[in-house]
Amino acid sequence: MKRDNSRHINSYKRLGKNIADRRKFLKISQEELAFRISSTRNYIGCIERGEKFPSIAVIFDIAKALNIQPKDFFEGT
Amino acid sequence: MKRDNSRHINSYKRLGKNIADRRKFLKISQEELAFRISSTRNYIGCIERGEKFPSIAVIFDIAKALNIQPKDFFEGT
Repeated sequence: MKRDNSRHINSYKRLGKNIADRRKFLKISQEELAFRISSTRNYIGCIERGEKFPSIAVIFDIAKALNIQPKDFFEGT
Repeated sequence: MKRDNSRHINSYKRLGKNIADRRKFLKISQEELAFRISSTRNYIGCIERGEKFPSIAVIFDIAKALNIQPKDFFEGT
C-alpha cells in the first residue's frame, strides 16, 4: 500500500535535521557523506531538509557512515 | 539509487522483532494492527519476520498505532 509521506512531513524534517546535526558534529561535508553511501550531495541535502523520504536501507547506510546507531536519527520523530 | 536491502537483513529482522514484541506486549493481534494502519495481516507478518522491507512512513504509522516512539523500534538494529 502506498503511504502518504506528507502526513509525516514534520517527522521527516526532524529525521533530516538529526542526520545533518550528526554530520556537522563530525565535520563531514554533504559531499563526503554522499561519497560514503554512494549517493549525491543533492540527495543528501534533500534528505537533511526533509524534502525527500529516504528508505530505511538509506538510513542504515548513513548511520554506518556516520558511526551512530540508526535509532539516534529517530530521536524526536 | 536502489539500495540492496539484503545487506541489512539482520537489521530488518531485529526491527520486525521489536515491532512484534511491542504488539504482543499490548496483546494486540496482527489483524488488529493491520486494521489500525490500513494494511493486511499478511503484510504485518512479513514485516515482523523481516521478510518485507517497510518504508519509514509505515514505521511511523505502526509506532503511532502501538503508542510508542519510532526510535524504540530501531533498538539494536
